[in-house]
Amino acid sequence: MSESDSPSDFHSTIAALGGAALADRLRFVTEIDKLKSVLRQTPLLDRSRKENDAEHSWHLAMMACVLADYADRSVDMLRVIRMLLIHDIVEIDAGDTFLYDTSAAADEQEEKEKAAADRIFGLLPADQATEFRALWDEFEAHESADAQFARAMDRTQPFLHNFLTQGMMWRQHGVRPDQVRKRMSVIADGSTKLHALVQSLIDEAESHGYFDPGLET
Amino acid sequence: MSESDSPSDFHSTIAALGGAALADRLRFVTEIDKLKSVLRQTPLLDRSRKENDAEHSWHLAMMACVLADYADRSVDMLRVIRMLLIHDIVEIDAGDTFLYDTSAAADEQEEKEKAAADRIFGLLPADQATEFRALWDEFEAHESADAQFARAMDRTQPFLHNFLTQGMMWRQHGVRPDQVRKRMSVIADGSTKLHALVQSLIDEAESHGYFDPGLET
Repeated sequence: MSESDSPSDFHSTIAALGGAALADRLRFVTEIDKLKSVLRQTPLLDRSRKENDAEHSWHLAMMACVLADYADRSVDMLRVIRMLLIHDIVEIDAGDTFLYDTSAAADEQEEKEKAAADRIFGLLPADQATEFRALWDEFEAHESADAQFARAMDRTQPFLHNFLTQGMMWRQHGVRPDQVRKRMSVIADGSTKLHALVQSLIDEAESHGYFDPGLET
Repeated sequence: MSESDSPSDFHSTIAALGGAALADRLRFVTEIDKLKSVLRQTPLLDRSRKENDAEHSWHLAMMACVLADYADRSVDMLRVIRMLLIHDIVEIDAGDTFLYDTSAAADEQEEKEKAAADRIFGLLPADQATEFRALWDEFEAHESADAQFARAMDRTQPFLHNFLTQGMMWRQHGVRPDQVRKRMSVIADGSTKLHALVQSLIDEAESHGYFDPGLET
């Protein structure tokens, strides 16, 4: 068995040993390993490298557990965590989009991500594919209490990393405080307390010069 | 604010802006970023590098979602997922232990991990610290249905990575099939179907020479 044909061989092997439904599940489980190689703009707190989507998703799920009390509305934690675990899986095909990217490429991203959702969630047995796709659509729609709290986590975590690295990524990309204030405003849909904290930290960041390209750190 | 004193400064800043309970939670949230730098022996499926504990924890939580039907007993998925998200956090202080390590160092690991649990979960407000510690103790005890299914995930995922990389890590460390059979036997406590699959795959691996140090891949 060579490396190149192993996914299909593996599926046949599992199907023969454990049935098609298990083979489909394990094809999905092995496919999503690729999320560990999708890099984001956010640095780790020790600044050693950029964060990847898989560890980011873990971090958000942990934050949701720890900060559940800060949700404004009642949320279903199992649904919130599952949303956060799967929310970036489409980036295996579509890649990560920088939050402050205003180019046309960002507009095309939505179509790419939908195609990715079709392909990747489509690896699962039909009932699970439908369930995961519905959860991802709900996250993307930003309307339910669960999705809004999940999105508050997804905005707060990279903000904290940027704040704690003295604006490393903001300075690198020339991001302005007003852009950050605008992007962080959606945190208020999920948690007014976390939103108030983040707005205060943006003021702190500004006063410390974290948006100044010449800052020495 | 210099990088070296930022954790305590950050805690004071958050405490002033959002209160001590939020500051404690965010100190924990930022501390666990270090899990992204704890490397395991398991390779990514593309063989590009070793997996880290944070992305491993994400992968296990995803597997639990996808493979929930394969649990022998009724499990509480929120508890299983939370256990998997936190199960390796102690390795921030204690480091990863190789599953096939039989040295005395492996015996000392338990004490190191308990001290790590005291310190790291202890960063949280008391009620959350107690809750997370109890979940971690339950995972470590391997007795409840939730813990046994969680552990089945924790054994199955690295096994699949080793199988799909033609025994890369087994060959590197001279691991024998009987050692793998023994270590994988606990999967049966959580899922007899997954255990049966893994045992069959060990036979496959043996017949393909994945335990042979001289295998060319």
